[in-house]
Amino acid sequence: MEGLIFKVLRSFLVLTWFLVPFHASLVVSAKRSTYIVHMDKSAMPKAFSGHHMWYSSTVDAVKSVSFDSLRNGPKFVYSYDNVLHGFSALLSEDELEALKKSPGFLSAYTDKLVTTDTTHTYNFLSLNPTNGLWPASDFGKDVIVGVIDTGVWPESPSYKDDGMTPIPSKWKGTCEAGQDFNSSLCNLKLIGARYFNKGLVAANPKIVISMNSTRDTFGHGTHTSSTVAGNYVEDASFFGYASGTARGIAPRARVAMYKVSWPEGAYTSDIIAGIDQAVADGVDVISISMGLNFIPLYEDPLAIASFGAMEKGVMFSCSAGNNGPSLGTLHNGIPWTMTVAAGTVDRFLAGTVTLGNGMTITGWTTFPARAVVEDLPLIYNPTIAGCNSSDLLSSAHGIVICDNFNAFYNHENISRSTVPATIFFSDDPEITESTTFPDPGVIISTKYQEDVMKYALNGVKPTASITFQQTILGANPAPVVADYSSRGPAPSYPNILKPDVMAPGTLVLAAWVPTSPVATIGDKIRLSSDFSLATGTSMACPHASGVAALLKGAHPEWSPAAIRSAIMTTASTLDNTQSPIKDMGFNYDIASPLAMGAGHINPNAALDPGLIYDATAQDYISLLCTMNLTRSQIASIVRSTDYSCLNASSDLNYPSFIALYNNGSTGVLNKIFERTVTNVGDGPATYKAIVTAPRGSVVEVNPQTLAFQKKYDRQTYSLTIRYTSDNSAKVSFGSITWSDFGGKHVVRSPIVVSPITTVWA
Amino acid sequence: MEGLIFKVLRSFLVLTWFLVPFHASLVVSAKRSTYIVHMDKSAMPKAFSGHHMWYSSTVDAVKSVSFDSLRNGPKFVYSYDNVLHGFSALLSEDELEALKKSPGFLSAYTDKLVTTDTTHTYNFLSLNPTNGLWPASDFGKDVIVGVIDTGVWPESPSYKDDGMTPIPSKWKGTCEAGQDFNSSLCNLKLIGARYFNKGLVAANPKIVISMNSTRDTFGHGTHTSSTVAGNYVEDASFFGYASGTARGIAPRARVAMYKVSWPEGAYTSDIIAGIDQAVADGVDVISISMGLNFIPLYEDPLAIASFGAMEKGVMFSCSAGNNGPSLGTLHNGIPWTMTVAAGTVDRFLAGTVTLGNGMTITGWTTFPARAVVEDLPLIYNPTIAGCNSSDLLSSAHGIVICDNFNAFYNHENISRSTVPATIFFSDDPEITESTTFPDPGVIISTKYQEDVMKYALNGVKPTASITFQQTILGANPAPVVADYSSRGPAPSYPNILKPDVMAPGTLVLAAWVPTSPVATIGDKIRLSSDFSLATGTSMACPHASGVAALLKGAHPEWSPAAIRSAIMTTASTLDNTQSPIKDMGFNYDIASPLAMGAGHINPNAALDPGLIYDATAQDYISLLCTMNLTRSQIASIVRSTDYSCLNASSDLNYPSFIALYNNGSTGVLNKIFERTVTNVGDGPATYKAIVTAPRGSVVEVNPQTLAFQKKYDRQTYSLTIRYTSDNSAKVSFGSITWSDFGGKHVVRSPIVVSPITTVWA
Repeated sequence: MEGLIFKVLRSFLVLTWFLVPFHASLVVSAKRSTYIVHMDKSAMPKAFSGHHMWYSSTVDAVKSVSFDSLRNGPKFVYSYDNVLHGFSALLSEDELEALKKSPGFLSAYTDKLVTTDTTHTYNFLSLNPTNGLWPASDFGKDVIVGVIDTGVWPESPSYKDDGMTPIPSKWKGTCEAGQDFNSSLCNLKLIGARYFNKGLVAANPKIVISMNSTRDTFGHGTHTSSTVAGNYVEDASFFGYASGTARGIAPRARVAMYKVSWPEGAYTSDIIAGIDQAVADGVDVISISMGLNFIPLYEDPLAIASFGAMEKGVMFSCSAGNNGPSLGTLHNGIPWTMTVAAGTVDRFLAGTVTLGNGMTITGWTTFPARAVVEDLPLIYNPTIAGCNSSDLLSSAHGIVICDNFNAFYNHENISRSTVPATIFFSDDPEITESTTFPDPGVIISTKYQEDVMKYALNGVKPTASITFQQTILGANPAPVVADYSSRGPAPSYPNILKPDVMAPGTLVLAAWVPTSPVATIGDKIRLSSDFSLATGTSMACPHASGVAALLKGAHPEWSPAAIRSAIMTTASTLDNTQSPIKDMGFNYDIASPLAMGAGHINPNAALDPGLIYDATAQDYISLLCTMNLTRSQIASIVRSTDYSCLNASSDLNYPSFIALYNNGSTGVLNKIFERTVTNVGDGPATYKAIVTAPRGSVVEVNPQTLAFQKKYDRQTYSLTIRYTSDNSAKVSFGSITWSDFGGKHVVRSPIVVSPITTVWA
Repeated sequence: MEGLIFKVLRSFLVLTWFLVPFHASLVVSAKRSTYIVHMDKSAMPKAFSGHHMWYSSTVDAVKSVSFDSLRNGPKFVYSYDNVLHGFSALLSEDELEALKKSPGFLSAYTDKLVTTDTTHTYNFLSLNPTNGLWPASDFGKDVIVGVIDTGVWPESPSYKDDGMTPIPSKWKGTCEAGQDFNSSLCNLKLIGARYFNKGLVAANPKIVISMNSTRDTFGHGTHTSSTVAGNYVEDASFFGYASGTARGIAPRARVAMYKVSWPEGAYTSDIIAGIDQAVADGVDVISISMGLNFIPLYEDPLAIASFGAMEKGVMFSCSAGNNGPSLGTLHNGIPWTMTVAAGTVDRFLAGTVTLGNGMTITGWTTFPARAVVEDLPLIYNPTIAGCNSSDLLSSAHGIVICDNFNAFYNHENISRSTVPATIFFSDDPEITESTTFPDPGVIISTKYQEDVMKYALNGVKPTASITFQQTILGANPAPVVADYSSRGPAPSYPNILKPDVMAPGTLVLAAWVPTSPVATIGDKIRLSSDFSLATGTSMACPHASGVAALLKGAHPEWSPAAIRSAIMTTASTLDNTQSPIKDMGFNYDIASPLAMGAGHINPNAALDPGLIYDATAQDYISLLCTMNLTRSQIASIVRSTDYSCLNASSDLNYPSFIALYNNGSTGVLNKIFERTVTNVGDGPATYKAIVTAPRGSVVEVNPQTLAFQKKYDRQTYSLTIRYTSDNSAKVSFGSITWSDFGGKHVVRSPIVVSPITTVWA
């Protein structure tokens, strides 16, 4: 029973935008759907002055096949040119068939509904103004981050542009006017705002868009974008909890918002359009906290669009998803992006219970007001301790101890009673993901239960006081991998270890939309705030995106793969107790790289990683060539049929290693990898390999020493995993660390051996 | 019915500390009471080394008369030496009679229970850092204000000493340790803390003092003292209302707190002890927001103690009381103090109602949270509009319009229902003194009632939204005399016009005690805040005290009478619409000086008043000589029998004029005043009189021009009021203004003609 409730709770707590498909009644023409159509741009007849004209003619040309074409012809939605060559259009099946015969046609698939997946964290990540990545990058001053999300609340204090310098000249974007959003709302911080809903409208022609502009009405996009690059805001808090000066990870970087997710739905055609435009506008980093589950790479709009972004040098950072802790649940397992898992933060939102006998206990609470609960009788009465009867509760004139934890979630009887406060007991760590605390009270650890009950039952006139709005920093262990964070291996391509890294995702404080309630008091009063605590890989991704933006500022010459490599190889695998990071989803066992990738991001270390595992667009094409894809499937990603598979190789130069084996098979798995590392440290350096082999494996590295004469020298090594299966279907993991002799640089890559069957479980 | 409710409401709203006398059962010895005993210090036998020894021997000497003296002898409470010569002691009637025969005995009376009577106001008073009184006084840097009140919360952000310079060397006070208050809690801002409850304990020997130290547990003393001289605090607000940077009127002055008022009671013996000590400690200004109603001057601890303070050059500022609007209700009508009435502030705490048809209405609300009430159905249903049935209300799923205003005060049914918000209609200005708003909703003017009802009844799917936590500045007219502010003439001595001035008293934001709830949500959740809005002359007094402190800083040589004169003659009689200030207690008629004294304090003008009406201790003695008091009654005030009545005169050199006549009498009242003004402007000046005679009176001034050769020159003039009674028992008023030719100085005094009968009505 409790398990079920937690399951329900979790889907409530974790910020993933679950989009419910529209009712059929809303879809006017059941005959037509929106298709994303990939075209071979090189096949464009010379008669056309541009690709847009060609694409629209192509759509026009299939009109005649339709009977009702006069009234309801095919409808052109978007043309794409930067990250995808092609267009989207509303087509009937007949029209689609006709289209397939058009010159240059590569592939087409239906537009899909997409699911979408903050501020002490800068401190938790050791960012500081005096040394390391912040000053080295000038706080991200010349970096532009394109956030693909639900829009932005431009009046948020995080979007004031105090202290911002003029916009870099490379910027080609705009501030699009729309409903309740005029173009003067942009400034030196929020430099661009555009919105994309033609796909949504095409799928639902009669739809009324509730906020037809880049204005955020949910809060998700305001939260993620302010996490990446929000300006400094003093005295930010969630109703007095987690208070302090809020700021984004890259507090001087610029934000351009591309609204593609709508309360009415989010369609892949709109998402591609947003990313396409972001690349055209000149963003340096794209941060996108959403993804599609169980979709092949060649139909995944993020995989497709991110390839084009990567080719143009744009760093693409995305969330792993919130479908953990089961293995093989990850989305955005895209080899050319950075995929981010979520961890906890060292912050505990607290209330202090002081018993009349002097005992003081810190419990969990986020009751969103400064309630006065002082020197009231403390009552434990088995008759009412179920806390599920408003009448019984109202008979108690004091703080009631509830021994039925279900009543915390089904709190209506408490809300409606006259009980001034309640005390619950629980040790479930998921409780501390909850920000819903509608009645004054606390949840305290069961280890204090006996003492509290004893005092309530046997004390002389037992009393208690509760103090709210407390925040405890330095809670440990932290980080811990969040239970909800989706796990690898990646269903879309399991042979690259995903996720790549972990970043803070649980209870992140960042800006929110003031019209969207974030807390309740009792059973009817809903409250809003300029800042809210949100939880999910949606919150983790923008932390990593912010670090990527800072690295781009500090090393403008680095490729997206180099930035990802720097973040991965310097990530931390230890928590704040200097023990290996644990996994909340697996009983606090040591977290596997399938949960946290290379580890927890460590921004200042990423500034100077020593060695880099780089990769070019051609490297990814060579990988795609090994994926058993059709030519047009590959072309839909690389935007051309004119690509080369001469160097086809599944051995991508990636800063992590995964060896999969068929579960149930016995015998020896032998997998050989080859990697090339680039010295990005200044001057000559010699690195030595230190290997921790996964349990049951032998790992060989050759050579074991790499000597670099100068900066940008490259060296190649091979790594062999020899795994003897014991048929236990266990995931095992280890690492290879290249360390220079001064110990200045520690370049670590995780190694995973995993049964392949778990992926599709 | 409504009238009754308002009456009840008012006593709830206005911050006067109503002290309920203790039950007889608590008073252990019904036979003994505490007496304040005045002694002729000049009669002290030479055998005694000091007054304290003499006083205690005097008490010891009466022990023998009592039968139970061994068990329960007379008990010495305090000896007083600065503002009163004498002591307080617990005595039986027999012991008192014996005491009366002791050498040096002057008078004795029983100890009495006392009733006690922020932060945009500095701006409303035009104080600013660049010119005028703030910079001229160095923000009060070297001035020490002694606040006699309920104690202080030393951890309040208003008591941080950031930016404070070292304590002036004249300071002789201390930081007394006590319960939850160690002596290190004082700092450069809160320089002294002492507490006085021996009188309380003497009257109630078995009493347990709930907080036996200077720590404030109520909030009153923290509020008044931070209003006088609180430090700067950013982002102060009352749950989001009235937000801004809080600061006291004299933000760099020092505070010494003398706690004399206790939740368990406040006794005159303790109050005198506190004032006595404050004077000994070296305070420059005493601010005291309490007073006793209908007590003769010679038994009034404030009148007695303030005389000694005045003699030592300590400015004494006190509150007029909250018993208005009836005439003759004022307390602290003491000729040698400044008595302060309360006015409103130009601030409106608001919620905005937006109807679905676009109409926007601003209403009154202080609902203490950022509730989201957006696009909900707007419901007017006569069956439920009484809003007095929780069940009926719960049947409505939207914002309910209530047409029964009683339900606003008896809100339990609304709180317990599921109704998300309510709308009430009222034009009663007293509503805007209320900070109790436990359910989401607003009160809007009846002028919008028809429009709102019409839309609710006839609109297509009528909806509304309400936005909370809004603050509207510049509301007008302001100031208005607050209805609750006690009115003159002063029962204790009606021949001096009281109150002296008016200062902001309604909904003043200042520091509060975090353990003392200041708002509620629903019918059980009580909330606290570091800052609270409070209303009363208790809040007005510290504003005037703060201005007095600034003037003391700018003009250290000025006497208390000179400071009072400067504040009075420069006070404003116009509101922010440039019309005469109105009186909320009299249907917004033009306010009389019996309500607001000389007018609303105008600090920057007080810095340079041009002329001063000064008065010495001897002038007050000469006045006392005309009051039909016994020699010992006078001596109890002046602390000596060795005073001179040779110059007895009721014509005190006061900056205001009042002529009283017997109601019912007809004929001509003729009253002649003589005044001496001192030129405190630089260099020579010539002033001309401008008279506005009260209706029904002729006023003659002679001479009509006063020429001063140099600074500190004095000139005398006479003013004659000739009033022909029409038997209407009306109060009439006018003014005399001395203006120099450049119009640089405008020295205004109010003139009042009032029937004397109203005083004792």
